[in-house]
Formats: sequence, structure tokens, C-alpha cells
Amino acid sequence: MRIALDAMGTDAAPTTEVEGAIRALNELGEDFEIVLVGDPDLIGAELARHDDAPLGRIHVEAARERVLHDDAPATVVRRKPDSSIAVGLRLHREGAVDAFISAGPTGAVMAASLFILRRLPGVERPSVGTFLPTASTPSLLLDAGTNVDCKPRHLRQFAHLGRVYMADVLGIDEPRIGLLNIGEEPGKGEERAQEAYRMLAADEGLNFVGNIEGRQVVAGACDVLVADGFVGNVLLKFYESVAQFILGLVQREQRERGLDVAFDSVLRLLDYSEYGGAPLLGVNGVTIICHGGSPPKAIRNAVRVARQAVLSGMVADMASELHDSILPETA
Amino acid sequence: MRIALDAMGTDAAPTTEVEGAIRALNELGEDFEIVLVGDPDLIGAELARHDDAPLGRIHVEAARERVLHDDAPATVVRRKPDSSIAVGLRLHREGAVDAFISAGPTGAVMAASLFILRRLPGVERPSVGTFLPTASTPSLLLDAGTNVDCKPRHLRQFAHLGRVYMADVLGIDEPRIGLLNIGEEPGKGEERAQEAYRMLAADEGLNFVGNIEGRQVVAGACDVLVADGFVGNVLLKFYESVAQFILGLVQREQRERGLDVAFDSVLRLLDYSEYGGAPLLGVNGVTIICHGGSPPKAIRNAVRVARQAVLSGMVADMASELHDSILPETA
Repeated sequence: MRIALDAMGTDAAPTTEVEGAIRALNELGEDFEIVLVGDPDLIGAELARHDDAPLGRIHVEAARERVLHDDAPATVVRRKPDSSIAVGLRLHREGAVDAFISAGPTGAVMAASLFILRRLPGVERPSVGTFLPTASTPSLLLDAGTNVDCKPRHLRQFAHLGRVYMADVLGIDEPRIGLLNIGEEPGKGEERAQEAYRMLAADEGLNFVGNIEGRQVVAGACDVLVADGFVGNVLLKFYESVAQFILGLVQREQRERGLDVAFDSVLRLLDYSEYGGAPLLGVNGVTIICHGGSPPKAIRNAVRVARQAVLSGMVADMASELHDSILPETA
Repeated sequence: MRIALDAMGTDAAPTTEVEGAIRALNELGEDFEIVLVGDPDLIGAELARHDDAPLGRIHVEAARERVLHDDAPATVVRRKPDSSIAVGLRLHREGAVDAFISAGPTGAVMAASLFILRRLPGVERPSVGTFLPTASTPSLLLDAGTNVDCKPRHLRQFAHLGRVYMADVLGIDEPRIGLLNIGEEPGKGEERAQEAYRMLAADEGLNFVGNIEGRQVVAGACDVLVADGFVGNVLLKFYESVAQFILGLVQREQRERGLDVAFDSVLRLLDYSEYGGAPLLGVNGVTIICHGGSPPKAIRNAVRVARQAVLSGMVADMASELHDSILPETA
């Protein structure tokens, strides 16, 4: 197995990517290799700084351009065909690698993935999934901001994408699918939510557990939380900020009492780098998107997730599930 | 000034209401009286238990029925015309009192207020406002779940209702109006948010500060946060649960270290009973809605808010502002 890693994506590229790749190769098993995509001179210089790099499992693919935050996502493949994002994704499409990881600008990675890998049949809107920490296992939020103004049928497609991801990558056999709503009863919420409820409840291929209110999210009431990307994105950003706000208040109060409190376990729970990046679900390939500020650990964990997605045959499973569940209704 | 207080609303009615009323009368000034609406025998027995009740400023209005949680809100005025909610609101419409407070079922208080008090001209959807604690002063969230599937023009009406409320009741002269969205730029978000942005930005009567992302809410980036009630309600319920979740995690971690931490100031900030209930804005009167689980302090604070709304002429100010800003466009 080969995993392509955009070496030019993080704010500290390629230092972070090279270190993350080496950690992944040394810690996650011997059954895969990594193709670092980017400036060969910079990558080579970084590799030379590590004496534990398993060089026989590391390849470098030259890409002379780098995608920046102000590059328009929609035109990045055409305008920067030799960027690390475009080069890495073409390797994936051609079968030279089995997965692609990037910490470059999310919009550009998404748009390039759609353009180069294409959507799976039955998926109208691929979606970037994000994990929400809960009192139990983390919930996969779909959609977390990629798609606004979704139709109910898009939410049902998200549910199937999330189902396969949780089963194949996280090993949760029958993941509980919840619909973000403002009440528990089926008739609650906006029109879209009511219609989505009916579609999800009627779908025998889903373990639909019903509406999930805002207050139930952190209790871990479902494994996949389906929502329009507008409310999903508000929720996601709000979560991070409320958590930090509360921790800040607690810390101030304790300091005023002369106490110094540590929040190690809480901060670890809230640390996105533990979760290994956000998968772009619904394209014909494995794309994992990392924060631009990712530390090496986050890159390592993204490799872990990508490897598991490949080993489990996630893309083939998604294609097959969509073929059986979604396509018959759109034919 | 007379304020009607539904004495049969809280889970511990009328004990809580009577105690809250007495505290309000003794603590908030001499310029108002309270009309307790409900079962006269129960209210009389409660009053007899207090030796500090200023009986000359307390009146009792008999209401023989009580609205329960499973009463359908839409028909409660017709089916229970002698309920404390219907009786209290009729007193308000007839001018016998200047405001109405209830901790009864929110839907019933809302529906009865709309039916009996009627909407102000220019308001299509009255809205229950709720306060979100922030690092600065609390933000008034409109809508917090009353109205889903709002149109952009409804959001603009919420903005004006919130503006007058914050100016008159909280004394914030030019409250900052923010639009809940998933990015800061004008073109961000769902279609409704984009159109609402244009309407709010074009409205010279509003101090519109632009889009507010989920992460900016707790920073206190605006005084009035305008949103559709679907995302508003998700946000509100999520806030309470995330805060409790984080505090629980912190507490567990400290206990494992043998530390006992207190969160007094944090809990006070998050304590809804400090905020004095949720105003129903857009009806031709002052209706304040309290939680069913309110303690006496919350009732006392609701009286404080109702009194301030009456003193400031809030309803007349709202009518006048809507007449000048909203009505010309709908004529």
C-alpha cells in the first residue's frame, strides 16, 4: 500500500509532514509506504535531519507549486497543475497510490479531489466529516460546513457515507445514525429536518436512532450526526469556543483562589490532532484533510486513518452501499 | 404599575411564585404592585407563611384552571379560558395590568399571548429571546427555537425587536446586531443568511456588525444574535450541555488528583435564573416566560425585567420602530 502525503500543506511544511510521516512509518506497521509530494530539495533536507527515517519505504514525488490560502479553490487544478495537491491526487487517480493526505487549504483539497477523483455514483455532494468529542466515543458530524442548503436526500447520502466510514475505519458495526434537530419527536424542526427524518427512518440499511437535540450531542447519543452544513459548522465552531471559554473561566477562578489546576485529560479529549484529520467522503478515493496548524502527531494519525480506510476497502464498500440503497431511487 | 404573575406555572407552584413575588416587591422598589393569578386558596395559604409580604401591594386574581404540559398550545385559550395564563393575559389586554409573567408551558404562554395580546404591526413572527452568557455582557439570541423556516425578512424583524429590547430594558444604546453565519464575509453561508445579510446591512436603523461565526459567540461579539430558530435552538441547548460536560470533565480530573475544585463564578455565569426569564417580543404587551423549574430568584428577576420593560415604554418603542422601518416596505 502506498499513501501520498502532500508535504507542502501545513504552516510548517515540510518539517511537520516529514516528521509525521516518519513517525507513522515507524509506529503503524510495515505494510505501507509513503510518497511525499512537494519540493524535493526541501523534503530531502528534512529527511536528512532524521536518522530514524525508513528510507526504503519513503518516496518523493516532485511538485513545483504550492497552493496558497488565497488561491481560488475552484480553479486550483487548472491554475496550479504542478501543485502538491494536484500531483498527489493524480497519483491517486492513476492508481500509483491508494490514498491522499493534505493539510493544505480545505477548499482547494476538496475541489481538487472532486475534480480529479470524481464523485461516487449516488453521491451528489461529497462531505468533509469532522469528529465531535463526547462523553462516549466521538461522533462523526456530516456535514460540518462543506455543504449548505442541503436537501433531505443529501442528508440521507451523508448517513450512508458516515455509516460505511464508521464501520470500516472505526470498526463500529452498526453505527447509530442521528439527525440533528430541535426536539425528539418525528414532527419536530424545520421542514427539511422533518422530511429527512422520514427518509432516514424508512431506510432499512441504516440504524437510525432518531432526532438528536443539541443537548444530547456531547452525551454521545449517536455515532454519526447528520446535519446540514450550516448548522453543523455553527455547532463545530461553537463547541471549540465554548470549551475553551469554560476552561478559561475555571482557570481564572482557581487562580484567584491560589490554585493551579491542570486539564490534561480534558485538553486531550478536545485535541483534534488525536482524531487523524477529516475524511472527505463521497469521492472515488481516500482523501484525508488536516488542519494547516497540525503538529506531526496529527499527520501521523491521518496516515493511520488513511491506512485503515484502504485496508478495509472503504471506497468499494461505499460504492456498493450507494449502489444498493441510493441509486435505485434515483434511477 | 401592576404586573400580573401566573402563580400556577412552576413545578413548585404557587410556593415559588409567591416567594419570588415577595422578594421582588421588597427588593426592587415601591413603584409597582403584583397580581398573583391562580387558585386563591393555595395562594392565600402561601402568603400566610411569609411575615414579610407587603400585602398592600399584592393582589390575587382567581383562576380556577391550570395549563398542563400536554395541553395543546394552540387551543389552550379556548379549552381552558379560566386558566391562570388566559386570565392573566386578559387582565393585560384590558389594561388592568402592564405586564404578564408565567413559568407555565412555553408553547401555551406564547400561543395565548399571540391570541390575546395580538402581534404588533410589522411583526409576522413574535420571538422568544434567550440570553447566551459570554465573556462580555450576555447576547440576546433571537430566535431561540420559536420560529423555524424563517425568511430573511423575519430575521430583520427579530433584529429590530432585539434592538429595542436591549436599548430599553438593558440600557445598551446602540446594541450591536450580529447575524449567525459560518464565515465573516458577506457572501458566506446558506442562501437565507446571504439575503438576510444584505437586508440587515442596508437597514440604517440597525448597528449591524456583520456575520458572527460560532466561535465568536462566546467572545461577546454582538449584543443581539439573529438566527433562524432551528440553528438558534441547537446552539442554545448545545451551549448548556457543552458547558456542563466540560465542567464535569474538569471536576473528574481534579478529583483523580485529590483536588476539590469549585466553580462558583462559572456556574453563576451559566445560571439562567440570573437573567430573569425570556421575553416574548413582538406582541402588543409585555410577556416574560420563565423555566418551569425556576427558583424564586428567577421569578424575582423576571419581575425586574418586566418592570423595566414597562418603565421604558418598550412596547410603544417597538411599535414606533416597526412603523418607521418595517411597515413602509410592506405597504
